[in-house]
Amino acid sequence: MTRKKYGDDFRIGDVYRTAAITVTETHVVTWAGLTGDFYPLHMDEEYASRTQFGGRIAHGPMIFGLAVGLVAQSGIGEDSVIAWLGVDKMRMHAPVRMGDTVRVTVEVKEQAPTRSPGKGIQMWLYTVTNQRDETVMSFEYRMMFHMRAGEAA
Amino acid sequence: MTRKKYGDDFRIGDVYRTAAITVTETHVVTWAGLTGDFYPLHMDEEYASRTQFGGRIAHGPMIFGLAVGLVAQSGIGEDSVIAWLGVDKMRMHAPVRMGDTVRVTVEVKEQAPTRSPGKGIQMWLYTVTNQRDETVMSFEYRMMFHMRAGEAA
Amino acid sequence: MTRKKYGDDFRIGDVYRTAAITVTETHVVTWAGLTGDFYPLHMDEEYASRTQFGGRIAHGPMIFGLAVGLVAQSGIGEDSVIAWLGVDKMRMHAPVRMGDTVRVTVEVKEQAPTRSPGKGIQMWLYTVTNQRDETVMSFEYRMMFHMRAGEAA
Amino acid sequence: MTRKKYGDDFRIGDVYRTAAITVTETHVVTWAGLTGDFYPLHMDEEYASRTQFGGRIAHGPMIFGLAVGLVAQSGIGEDSVIAWLGVDKMRMHAPVRMGDTVRVTVEVKEQAPTRSPGKGIQMWLYTVTNQRDETVMSFEYRMMFHMRAGEAA
Amino acid sequence: MTRKKYGDDFRIGDVYRTAAITVTETHVVTWAGLTGDFYPLHMDEEYASRTQFGGRIAHGPMIFGLAVGLVAQSGIGEDSVIAWLGVDKMRMHAPVRMGDTVRVTVEVKEQAPTRSPGKGIQMWLYTVTNQRDETVMSFEYRMMFHMRAGEAA
Amino acid sequence: MTRKKYGDDFRIGDVYRTAAITVTETHVVTWAGLTGDFYPLHMDEEYASRTQFGGRIAHGPMIFGLAVGLVAQSGIGEDSVIAWLGVDKMRMHAPVRMGDTVRVTVEVKEQAPTRSPGKGIQMWLYTVTNQRDETVMSFEYRMMFHMRAGEAA
Repeated sequence: MTRKKYGDDFRIGDVYRTAAITVTETHVVTWAGLTGDFYPLHMDEEYASRTQFGGRIAHGPMIFGLAVGLVAQSGIGEDSVIAWLGVDKMRMHAPVRMGDTVRVTVEVKEQAPTRSPGKGIQMWLYTVTNQRDETVMSFEYRMMFHMRAGEAA
Repeated sequence: MTRKKYGDDFRIGDVYRTAAITVTETHVVTWAGLTGDFYPLHMDEEYASRTQFGGRIAHGPMIFGLAVGLVAQSGIGEDSVIAWLGVDKMRMHAPVRMGDTVRVTVEVKEQAPTRSPGKGIQMWLYTVTNQRDETVMSFEYRMMFHMRAGEAA
Repeated sequence: MTRKKYGDDFRIGDVYRTAAITVTETHVVTWAGLTGDFYPLHMDEEYASRTQFGGRIAHGPMIFGLAVGLVAQSGIGEDSVIAWLGVDKMRMHAPVRMGDTVRVTVEVKEQAPTRSPGKGIQMWLYTVTNQRDETVMSFEYRMMFHMRAGEAA
Repeated sequence: MTRKKYGDDFRIGDVYRTAAITVTETHVVTWAGLTGDFYPLHMDEEYASRTQFGGRIAHGPMIFGLAVGLVAQSGIGEDSVIAWLGVDKMRMHAPVRMGDTVRVTVEVKEQAPTRSPGKGIQMWLYTVTNQRDETVMSFEYRMMFHMRAGEAA
Repeated sequence: MTRKKYGDDFRIGDVYRTAAITVTETHVVTWAGLTGDFYPLHMDEEYASRTQFGGRIAHGPMIFGLAVGLVAQSGIGEDSVIAWLGVDKMRMHAPVRMGDTVRVTVEVKEQAPTRSPGKGIQMWLYTVTNQRDETVMSFEYRMMFHMRAGEAA
Repeated sequence: MTRKKYGDDFRIGDVYRTAAITVTETHVVTWAGLTGDFYPLHMDEEYASRTQFGGRIAHGPMIFGLAVGLVAQSGIGEDSVIAWLGVDKMRMHAPVRMGDTVRVTVEVKEQAPTRSPGKGIQMWLYTVTNQRDETVMSFEYRMMFHMRAGEAA
C-alpha cells in the first residue's frame, strides 16, 4: 500500500486501460436528478424513440464523469497527481445507450516542465470505448505531477 | 408551452444567468458513488483537512455536470439545440466546498454557419460562480442550432 | 407473521402513532432529483436565507410522501387495505426544515359501506407533527378495506 | 432571465402541458427508500405478478410528487407563486407501471381575491396522463400568487 | 402501537418469515456507489456474461444488508432488542441475480442468560431464500434482549 | 494494468491498509433506503439523542459493507480471488457516528490448501478503525484464491 509513483513513471506513449462499467437506467436517472438535466432525450422514452437515436441515450457529460471515475478507480496516477489543470477537446463521437459497457484507454501524450523543480505537467488523452470497441468520447486531460527529485520534468 | 426559439435568437454578446444550487455533502457522496471517484480529497475529511484546502472539496467534473444541468433546467436554448458538439478550455479556478452555492452565467461568444441551410453552430462560454461571485470554473460549450429558414447562420 | 386485520378492526376514534424520521439534507436533495423540483427555496441556501423562512425548507409534497411511508412502515392496516381511494384537504401548516423530526398521528374518522359485501371505505386523518409537537401537515386519506365476512361495513 | 409573471397572467381556462418523464424501476426503488414504503405491490415482483395488476406498479404518491416536479421544471408560475395552499381531490385513476411515460396538463380553474391587495388565490387542476393519453391521476392544487398592482385579484 | 415484546416472547424453534423484495439493477448500482465495490462481476455485463454466472450478480454483502433490513421492516423483535452482538457463519449458497426476489426466514436457535437480570442473549438463524425457495445466504445473528422481570433469561 | 497476483503473494502476517472514508448522513439515509432498516437509532435524531449514544449512529451492517468496499477499491487481491467463502466473528466494538472516518486494516491470518491444485483458501482478518484509531468493527473474511501452478496452497 506504499506504492509511490511520480510523473516520471508515466512516459509519452504509455497506454493504460481501465476496468469497464455497464451504463444503466439507474445511472441516467441518478445523473438527471443530481444535475437537474431532464432533457427528454434522456428521460422521455416516448420522445426519444421518435428521434434518430431510437430511444433514450445517456447524458454526454455523464460519460465524461464516468471516464474520470474509471481512471480514479484504476489507481493510475493516484499518488503522483498534484492538481487537475483542465480538459480540452471533449468530443462525443457516438451515443451511449443504457446497457452499453464503457471503459477508458488513457495515453500519455505530452509532458512539459514547470518553473518549480519537482513538478511537471502531463496531458493524457482519454478515449472512451464501448463493448464494440467504438470510440464514444475522447478528451484531453491535463494534470500537474510530482516529479522525482532533481529530474524536475 | 409552444415557445420556440432558433439559434438566431441568441446573439453574440447575449448573457443569460441560471438559477443557483447549493452544493451539499449529498451531491459529493452521490457523485463519488455514481462515477467511482473516491479520492480522499473528496471523501476523507481527515485527509482533506490536512491539505491546503482545509477540508473535503467537490469533484471538479461534478461542477461541470451541475453547470450543464443548471442551464438545462433554465430552459435556455431548449427548443433550438440540435446537437452537443463538445467542450473546450474547461478550467477549475477555485475549489467548491460543501455549502457553496453555484450558478452559471452563459455568454454567446461565437457563431458560425454550417453547410446545411437552417443549421448553425454557436459557442457559449459558461462561467460558474459561487456565492461570493468568484469564478470557480469556466468552459466553452459548442452546440449546433436550428436557424430560422433562409438565414442559415 | 400471519396477523390478519380487517377494516372492522379500525374503529372510529382509534388513534395510531408512527415512528419518527429526521428530515435531512439528503432527503431534500434526493427529492429534488427524483421529482425535478429544484425551486430555490429548497435548493439554494443563499436565496432561501433571505426569505421569511431564513433557510432552505423541505418540499411540501415530500412531507406527504414521508407521511405515507411512515404509516406503511408501521404496518397499520397493512393486511386489510384493498385500494387507495384518494387524498383531500392536504394542507401545510408550518415549514419543515432539515434537521426537523416528523411523525404521523392517524385517526380513524369516517367509515362507509360499499355495495360489495366484505368491502368498506374508511377515511383516516393523517396529522404530521414535528419534534415540538407542532402540526406541520394534515390530510384526509381514503382507503377501501376488507371487512369481516357478513359485516359488510 | 428576468421574465416576470403575475397571477393575472394565468386566466381561467388556460391550459399548460409539461414535458414528460418515463417512470423507471429506479424511480420506484428510490421512492421506496426515501419514504420507507416497501409495500410488496411496489417492491416484490413475485407478489405483484399475482395481483390484478400483473406486476409491480409505481407508488401513487410518487406520481403526485412527479407531477409537482414536472410543473416546477416547466417554469410555469415560477416567478409568481407566493405560497402553496394545499391539495384536494387527489385521485388515482389508473396504475402507472415502470416504463410508462407521464406528463401533466394544468388547467387554471378558479381565481379568488384575498384581503391583501396584490395577492390572489388560484386553483389549478393537474391531470397526469400516460403515453396512451389515459388519465392516471388528477388533483386540485391551490396557490397564492402575486397579482399586478391595483388589480388585487 | 404500544405492542411491547420481550426476548422471552421468542422461543427456541419459533420461525418468522419476512416480506420479500425484488433485487433490481438499481439496488446493485446503488450498493456499488455506496460502498465503492465496483468489481466487474457486479458492474460490467460484458465481463460477467463470460463468467460461470452468465451475467452480473448482486454483491454478497448486499444480500446480508437486505436481510437485516427485511427483518427490521417486519418489526420482529423491534421493541425488545438492546444490542446487536454480531454475526457468524455468513455463507453465500447461491448467487442472487437482478430480478430475483428474496425474503428471510428467521429461526430462534439459542438462548443464554447474561449476568444482568432482565437481559438475555439469543441467536437467530437468518436464511435468505429466493423465488424458487432456494437458499441463497444464511448467517447467525446474535442480539441482547430485554427479558421479562424476574425471568432473567 | 496487467498486474497479476496469486494467493501465494499474500503471506500470513502480511498487513494491508485501505484508504479511508468519512461516513456521512448521506450514507446512513441511503443505507436505510436501500435495505429498509429505518430503526430510530439511525433515523430519528430526537430518539437517538436520548439513548446512551447521544445521537444517531450508523447501521452496523453498513460498516461491514463499507469495509468490503474499501478493500475492493484498494485493489488488494483483485486479480486473484476466485470466490467469497463467507464471514465469521463479525463484531461491532464501538459505534460509528456521522462524521467519523473509517478505514480497514487487513491481515492475512490463515491459509489452507484445497483439493484442486492451483486453488487455495485464505482467511483475512478485517479490522475497521476510526479517526482516533479505535477499532469499531472486526470480522474474518474467507476467500478462495488462484495459487501459482504446482504450488496448490
